[in-house]
Amino acid sequence: MPVGDATLDWLPIEGVEISTLASGIRYEDREDLVLFRLSERAEVAAIFTQNYFPAAPVTVAKAHLAQGQPRYLLINTGNANAATGDQGIEDALSCCALVADAERQPVTSVLPFSTGVIGERLPLPPFSEAMPQLIKQLGDQNWHDAATAIMTTDTRPKIACRSVVVGEQTVQFTGIAKGAGMIQPNMATMLCFIACDANVDQGLLQDMLRAGANQSFNRITVDSDTSTNDACLLVATGSVDLDVESNLEAQMQLQDGLTDIMLELAQGLVRDGEGATKFVTVQVDGASSEAQALEVAFSIANSPLMKTALFASDANWGRLAMAVGKANIPIDSNRVDLFIGDVCLMHSGVRDPQYQEVDGARAVAGAEVLLRVNLNLGEFSETVWTSDLSHEYIRINAEYRT
Amino acid sequence: MPVGDATLDWLPIEGVEISTLASGIRYEDREDLVLFRLSERAEVAAIFTQNYFPAAPVTVAKAHLAQGQPRYLLINTGNANAATGDQGIEDALSCCALVADAERQPVTSVLPFSTGVIGERLPLPPFSEAMPQLIKQLGDQNWHDAATAIMTTDTRPKIACRSVVVGEQTVQFTGIAKGAGMIQPNMATMLCFIACDANVDQGLLQDMLRAGANQSFNRITVDSDTSTNDACLLVATGSVDLDVESNLEAQMQLQDGLTDIMLELAQGLVRDGEGATKFVTVQVDGASSEAQALEVAFSIANSPLMKTALFASDANWGRLAMAVGKANIPIDSNRVDLFIGDVCLMHSGVRDPQYQEVDGARAVAGAEVLLRVNLNLGEFSETVWTSDLSHEYIRINAEYRT
Repeated sequence: MPVGDATLDWLPIEGVEISTLASGIRYEDREDLVLFRLSERAEVAAIFTQNYFPAAPVTVAKAHLAQGQPRYLLINTGNANAATGDQGIEDALSCCALVADAERQPVTSVLPFSTGVIGERLPLPPFSEAMPQLIKQLGDQNWHDAATAIMTTDTRPKIACRSVVVGEQTVQFTGIAKGAGMIQPNMATMLCFIACDANVDQGLLQDMLRAGANQSFNRITVDSDTSTNDACLLVATGSVDLDVESNLEAQMQLQDGLTDIMLELAQGLVRDGEGATKFVTVQVDGASSEAQALEVAFSIANSPLMKTALFASDANWGRLAMAVGKANIPIDSNRVDLFIGDVCLMHSGVRDPQYQEVDGARAVAGAEVLLRVNLNLGEFSETVWTSDLSHEYIRINAEYRT
Repeated sequence: MPVGDATLDWLPIEGVEISTLASGIRYEDREDLVLFRLSERAEVAAIFTQNYFPAAPVTVAKAHLAQGQPRYLLINTGNANAATGDQGIEDALSCCALVADAERQPVTSVLPFSTGVIGERLPLPPFSEAMPQLIKQLGDQNWHDAATAIMTTDTRPKIACRSVVVGEQTVQFTGIAKGAGMIQPNMATMLCFIACDANVDQGLLQDMLRAGANQSFNRITVDSDTSTNDACLLVATGSVDLDVESNLEAQMQLQDGLTDIMLELAQGLVRDGEGATKFVTVQVDGASSEAQALEVAFSIANSPLMKTALFASDANWGRLAMAVGKANIPIDSNRVDLFIGDVCLMHSGVRDPQYQEVDGARAVAGAEVLLRVNLNLGEFSETVWTSDLSHEYIRINAEYRT
């Protein structure tokens, strides 16, 4: 069960058509193919996994992005087409060609994305059999179906939308994401597709996407593992005509809307983290740099001992102190304050004299927990989000064949 | 249940007396205090935790080591005296003073060590009540009792011995260790006490200890967490008179014996790792540097997804490839070979054409698993050892209050 409720609101984006289908790539009767068709004017920005074993579709998508005007996004679940070598590249290209031939467009106009089992060859017949129907069904009302079709171990779809008023015009953002494990900074087993209807040139769009990801997807972790297939796309269809390039205020408004929708989607992944029973916010204050704050925050967020204590609803501030101290950061332990929610556990490196276990137990009891550290060294604060480590995580990952 | 058998052989070391007692620090009727008394000639080398929240006994032991001639090691379980501030330092000193006063020695001759719950004040009455009896019982036959008394979540004691023939003389090593979680390079929730009966000066002894730890305790991981209390001591009692300083061959023989006993103890910790059902050797070959080989090896050994796959006896080479790729190391994925035992899973970045799942299943089925990676980039090889990630790890750490 994911932690907390999710809104499932969305709005269609003019210039984006979507279609989904159950093609039987791995499971019967489960939608596993998604096709996006973008308007001719659309610009596309993308960021991809940092893993040195990038999957074949990542390699192909990067190459196609660099060469031409992308018009189609073809996504499959059930098979990651990763660690498949030259054959995997050929297979990804074959899938792209199916779309391109049917639409009489160059193959480079199609960007492929895959998620699922690593190391097995992508089966092509399901793609070719599905293609006519997949194209025929394209429509602007299928965002929720797409959010569902891209799920793997996710227990619910992630979808979000934002409206940003710029001058007298309204820009719509709608986005979907998937991913529940292998979530760690610099992307994750994570696919995210966001579209807006403004006209933004590709360079600015790429900058906006990077800035948004840095405040959202790069600040979440479930298990510290990083997948081979991550991709995050931002499309600007150009239906709403704005003079964004020369209007800094408009840029900032769009950036705020984008970062906001990305944060909702990223936190949605954590809330649905494999086996998660708690949604944990880790806030580090008083650091001497952003890097220091993040290092300490991720040291806490990735500590298996801290995460199992959270699963047990144990206000175990000893493990919290341990996790602060093991970050490879020279701190002064005599200055450190630790809080869970509004309860001070440790003040200046020792147990707060006011602290009572009953207060700690109360602060850690709920499904939403705030861990807060003040290093009292400087002015930088950073926040990351994570889940706890439960029996269910082990069960899922011992049973599921990635 | 720990993985594999352990030998429990040991020999007394001339110049080392040991005593153990149940003092009731945390639990009734459980031996929780250990005292070592060393001969006057003894030299002591030590390495301590890298955690920036060092426990009070670590701070005191370092200071006492720097000031004088250590003659006593006082170890307690049940309470780590960590994150206890100035009060913790005072309490550690008070415990040292109990030994020193009874023995009419300076307080700096006593080195304190604690392990157990973090953040609670060390109760002093158990120490003062136990002290007369603890000193009275000192004897050279109590190594196994000490190995048992220092256990926390360990399920069995770790003890080992080696005899090294140097010229016409024989040097004996005996050592004990504890630790089952929070085990990660640069020490762990780990206490280790090794003694030998040779005469070695303190500088050389320290070098030997560092070199030995680098090949043993710094190459194991259970859960990537690092404790506040780690300490590893090496005592040379000087009972066997060797001219070690000017005899390079003798130094190498002693080093080999020391590294060997440290490796047995370190691997013993992994075999008894919290919830371990497998003892996993991770070997990385063909790296372009030692650092690169270690980075990749620990990326695999600490990957929760790899560790849960091992728990499920799943030869999941996709996760293995993922863990290689996520190490922050520029590799060429098209050169990578992956093996489990003698079964090649991946050759040059793609599934080995000869590979059959039945072979992988066989290779991963047993309690001892070898994961082997060849990066085919250079000449460096490194090996680290780890355990799998099981339901039992979660149970232990959700229930045990560190």
